[in-house]
Amino acid sequence: MKAVLYRGARHLGIEERDAQPPGRGQVRIAVAYTGICGTDLHIFHGDMDARVGAPAIIGHEMSGRIAAVGEGVTGWSVGRAVTVMPTRSCGRCPACRRGHSHICHAMDFLGIDSPGAMQSFWNVPAELVLPLPEELPLDHAALVEPVAVAVHDVRRANVSADQQVVVVGGGPVGVLIAVVAARQGARVLLVEPDPVRRAVAGELGIDAVDPTASDVVALVNDRTGGAGADVAFEVSGSAAGVGTAVDVLTTRGRLVLVAIHPQPRPVDLHRFFWRELELLGTRLYQRDDMVEAIRLVASGAIPVRRLISRVEPVEAVGAAFEALESGGVMKVLVDLREEAR
Amino acid sequence: MKAVLYRGARHLGIEERDAQPPGRGQVRIAVAYTGICGTDLHIFHGDMDARVGAPAIIGHEMSGRIAAVGEGVTGWSVGRAVTVMPTRSCGRCPACRRGHSHICHAMDFLGIDSPGAMQSFWNVPAELVLPLPEELPLDHAALVEPVAVAVHDVRRANVSADQQVVVVGGGPVGVLIAVVAARQGARVLLVEPDPVRRAVAGELGIDAVDPTASDVVALVNDRTGGAGADVAFEVSGSAAGVGTAVDVLTTRGRLVLVAIHPQPRPVDLHRFFWRELELLGTRLYQRDDMVEAIRLVASGAIPVRRLISRVEPVEAVGAAFEALESGGVMKVLVDLREEAR
Ligand SMILES: [Zn+2]
Ligand SMILES: [Zn+2]
Ligand SMILES: [Zn+2]
Ligand SMILES: [Zn+2]
Repeated sequence: MKAVLYRGARHLGIEERDAQPPGRGQVRIAVAYTGICGTDLHIFHGDMDARVGAPAIIGHEMSGRIAAVGEGVTGWSVGRAVTVMPTRSCGRCPACRRGHSHICHAMDFLGIDSPGAMQSFWNVPAELVLPLPEELPLDHAALVEPVAVAVHDVRRANVSADQQVVVVGGGPVGVLIAVVAARQGARVLLVEPDPVRRAVAGELGIDAVDPTASDVVALVNDRTGGAGADVAFEVSGSAAGVGTAVDVLTTRGRLVLVAIHPQPRPVDLHRFFWRELELLGTRLYQRDDMVEAIRLVASGAIPVRRLISRVEPVEAVGAAFEALESGGVMKVLVDLREEAR
Repeated sequence: MKAVLYRGARHLGIEERDAQPPGRGQVRIAVAYTGICGTDLHIFHGDMDARVGAPAIIGHEMSGRIAAVGEGVTGWSVGRAVTVMPTRSCGRCPACRRGHSHICHAMDFLGIDSPGAMQSFWNVPAELVLPLPEELPLDHAALVEPVAVAVHDVRRANVSADQQVVVVGGGPVGVLIAVVAARQGARVLLVEPDPVRRAVAGELGIDAVDPTASDVVALVNDRTGGAGADVAFEVSGSAAGVGTAVDVLTTRGRLVLVAIHPQPRPVDLHRFFWRELELLGTRLYQRDDMVEAIRLVASGAIPVRRLISRVEPVEAVGAAFEALESGGVMKVLVDLREEAR
């Protein structure tokens, strides 16, 4: 079997290994496709070396089929199409004790804290595995995890029909949030400077605007009779994006913070006070969000196919990371199927 | 009658005038006491000259008795003890149309945008007047408005019994928030560097800590088994206060932003993301909050007497403002009773 190894900043290796049998309580998954996301790119850049000890097998957005079932595991049979919820909570920390185990303080994140999905065979705890409908193509299924992020974000935002929603940032998660919110009946405006990403959003029926060419706040006010947006999602990770997300909101509007902001950002707290705005941080997903994501992708409600810019064989994993770095693409998948070779 | 006039930065005058009869739909109130708050101090410093056109009669925290009833007004009789909700909404702006008229975009704030309560007789629209129980002393009743602010803030924070609450900033509003939250069964810690204010809080049964002498975050973690606070109120208006309010919060904790922050503040958005925190801006009060505030003050549930540091006759209004400026006091009232002279 092949495994992609992160060996240090900007250094990936491909290693031929023997597949290990699944341990007690585990299943072995023959991985089909693994997507690369922003977190993987951060690891690739060496920004997460304090957490990710090299050499490490990364990757956490995947699809595959059960290849072997470990001792003590019931309910799974070889050949079944599956995906994995890559987060394993501790059950003991304050977050877990208060019922928020999805953002456990001592999370074991597969593909970050322990071996991930960029290998032909992956042994994972059976309780993290979710079944996929047989009719769902496995390349599409590799997008279930980012769809679950979007489902969680929109649920937490409590988006309802006829609300005006603004999504700031049109990468894969931003576009998926826009699509999920639009499916709930919201009027959605996506704010994204990259024309390729705007075009993808357009193909998915999302109205997208270039913030370098339009006054977004004026546009939103115009569309809402001067009121402003009910919900703004900050998915850009930029200081300017935070500013836009605050400025578009109506009285009692809600800013949902999805992106990672490594530095503190200047925030117009006076506007929060003046308009009684809300800000909600949101992260990851619960198991229900994964289940809903599978349903949305399998039913075709979210045509994730349009988000897949490239599929690269495992041998070209370096090129796949570089394609993502250079921009102008949405999702890049790595093809890890053994039978494909 | 006497009227206190704001004539420009740091310049107050006292003028002898003839009392005017109330207009149609108005009542004339013989003002008893008018409190001075942070907003009045801002006006006094000239910081709000763009909004407050000098000369202006300021003041909006008051008590008094009906002195005359204008044409078309029913339900009020002369001598009745009353207070005033000093906010008048437009009914047409986006906030009003969406049911948030208490933070109307075109608010007429009595004492800021139109004549206020620092005069012996005050003509106000009858619909803004609220009756006071006869047994409530009128000096205590002058604190109903700031109590309504605290009631609104705690209601919006959705504080429940057994939650750990941290209040950052122990001025009158901070202390009142602490008392209202404690009455709902919350465990409350007040953070305030000024020893006089901490002493007042202590007299009201509120546990207060000096942030310059203690590690507040460590203290809160210690008291909550490492979890952190459920709710933090930012009432200090300082950048450091924002930092403390963010850092003390538990997973899914709620920061309620009460204070005015004229400049954008650096905010640790990563922590909002990581712990799925919430931030809620909150401002002013609704009529229900005023009614509840009257109930709390009249019943003795909130012994506001302890918050009144000084009562100055109208002739000494300048000294009253200076006392507030120099710190070490909580609430300063101006005595406007004609019969007192
Ligand atoms: Zn990811
Ligand atoms: Zn945990
Ligand atoms: Zn006030
Ligand atoms: Zn209005």
